[in-house]
Amino acid sequence: MKKFLNTPESYLSDALAGLAAAHPELRVDAENGVVARASGPVEGKVGLVSGGGSGHEPLHSGFVGEGMLDAACPGEVFTSPVPDGFLAGVKAADAGRGTVLIVKNYTGDVMNAQMAAELAEDEGLRVEQVLVNDDVAVEDSTFTAGRRGTGATVFVEKICGAAAARGDGLEAVAELGRRVNAASRSFAVALTACTVPTAGRPGFDLPEEEIEVGVGIHGEPGRRREKLRSAREIVGEMMEAILQDSPLESGDEAVVMVNGMGGTPLSELYLVFGEVARVCGDKGITIARNLVGDYVTSLDMEGCSITLCRVEEGFLPLWDAPVNTPALRWGV
Amino acid sequence: MKKFLNTPESYLSDALAGLAAAHPELRVDAENGVVARASGPVEGKVGLVSGGGSGHEPLHSGFVGEGMLDAACPGEVFTSPVPDGFLAGVKAADAGRGTVLIVKNYTGDVMNAQMAAELAEDEGLRVEQVLVNDDVAVEDSTFTAGRRGTGATVFVEKICGAAAARGDGLEAVAELGRRVNAASRSFAVALTACTVPTAGRPGFDLPEEEIEVGVGIHGEPGRRREKLRSAREIVGEMMEAILQDSPLESGDEAVVMVNGMGGTPLSELYLVFGEVARVCGDKGITIARNLVGDYVTSLDMEGCSITLCRVEEGFLPLWDAPVNTPALRWGV
Repeated sequence: MKKFLNTPESYLSDALAGLAAAHPELRVDAENGVVARASGPVEGKVGLVSGGGSGHEPLHSGFVGEGMLDAACPGEVFTSPVPDGFLAGVKAADAGRGTVLIVKNYTGDVMNAQMAAELAEDEGLRVEQVLVNDDVAVEDSTFTAGRRGTGATVFVEKICGAAAARGDGLEAVAELGRRVNAASRSFAVALTACTVPTAGRPGFDLPEEEIEVGVGIHGEPGRRREKLRSAREIVGEMMEAILQDSPLESGDEAVVMVNGMGGTPLSELYLVFGEVARVCGDKGITIARNLVGDYVTSLDMEGCSITLCRVEEGFLPLWDAPVNTPALRWGV
Repeated sequence: MKKFLNTPESYLSDALAGLAAAHPELRVDAENGVVARASGPVEGKVGLVSGGGSGHEPLHSGFVGEGMLDAACPGEVFTSPVPDGFLAGVKAADAGRGTVLIVKNYTGDVMNAQMAAELAEDEGLRVEQVLVNDDVAVEDSTFTAGRRGTGATVFVEKICGAAAARGDGLEAVAELGRRVNAASRSFAVALTACTVPTAGRPGFDLPEEEIEVGVGIHGEPGRRREKLRSAREIVGEMMEAILQDSPLESGDEAVVMVNGMGGTPLSELYLVFGEVARVCGDKGITIARNLVGDYVTSLDMEGCSITLCRVEEGFLPLWDAPVNTPALRWGV
């Protein structure tokens, strides 16, 4: 295992210490597993929290800041935050108008977030959950009942973050998040496996010249293995899977993300985006906005995911609204 | 070789096509090797151009836009642009007040940029060159006489871009760029080698458990090979090399970049930044601004570089000035 780390056990806390050093506008509480805005909850605003296992950086801590999350709950690597972690995130975000908790659909996350929501409600806090389950690759998988939650999480966090910032209420922000999730579909491909620091070796074997089609963000199996093909063929298959399932139709607009899994060079991601744009053009879909880069990673995995969100009424002004976080920043 | 590409030969043009699709605010001319602002040269502003071999994305094309470059000249992978490429960049940037051409110190780049500058001057255009040579790892190397130009290029491009945007003249922008370079030092370490698409295999062999200390951005040899050690020890050695050579003294402020080489997860870069911050704290150096992420890459290489620039009079307001490019964006 070749990584920049001190010990496998201190990997997460050391990485969080670096995040804290780079971003004094964040309050990093590694002990309780919370990264929040240093300025505290925003008076009069609905709180917005997300969390999940670490190893997907910048998700979620890199999206804490003005116009996006109030707090993130980083669990251990590829491990759901404990209920107390989610609860600490809710408390760090709540300013009296309630908190929306965005949860990716993995069994552990769903269970622990639910427990945290109940604990929070016992303490008189209002919590609405938004479940993200955009990955069309497989129904049920390792760690998941139903579809996995992946790239659409970024779209939900950005659009809900802007809605909360403009003053929308608890139910409205949550309902908007559900609409964004329902409008979004993702599909991922891995060229290589990833290595969890405490494991010290790749999580699965992927022979040279083979790829995992439909891989999950922890390296869990997808639809099948196959020989590496051209980017155009791979993207063609990914886009077919997405569009078969998506509400997108010819004439629609989409927000598109081509996301690297951690070990993929930016030049390859742009190359993939070019192929995505070609398919969208052929299908009569206009790409209204795009993101190309590393947003939902899987440690050092080489691979990429594609996420398309159908643009619905009200989405684009919220997408374009100012955001000031370590990983997304515009308008400020 | 596992990469997202169609053919090794079309890798660069396909990646540029994707860049163009994602960023309509850029004009991408793959044939002549120029990426420029679609809106053309800015009336009344000194032009700013940089270029070099491709494979270092987002450098340089990702830094074209408001507040930074007017044009970039992407050569073939790890190959200097031809003189006509640099010349086309100068012509795309020139608005009548002359153009500053930022060149990383590699023999081919220096020679071809010089030829382009002479050709431009023959056509009545004024060109000032700024040579970047911040890498303290080695004197003379494969491809280079003298020190290599690496991470400081980002600092020179950002600060000169802001100076040009506020209306500084040709000589002033160039002189500022030379000051930024003189104030900057870098050092890089590779965990793995990188693979040029047309070669199809890693550019050098790096045994499991060994790292290349002082590597160049094309994988050229550094000071030595050694066993992988802890991030704290590696960063300690990198920082010692930088600080021994740097004008930085206790009480100074620095702009610090921890840069990924293309295949390094963001979490590890933050971990490295944490170690850099610790050393700076010990040495009495205040980190005034920082960048953590992939800015000057080496295709799929796993590794990182550290760059420190001593903050001098006037640097920070220019650093903070608005920038709107694919890879750096704030204030707009």
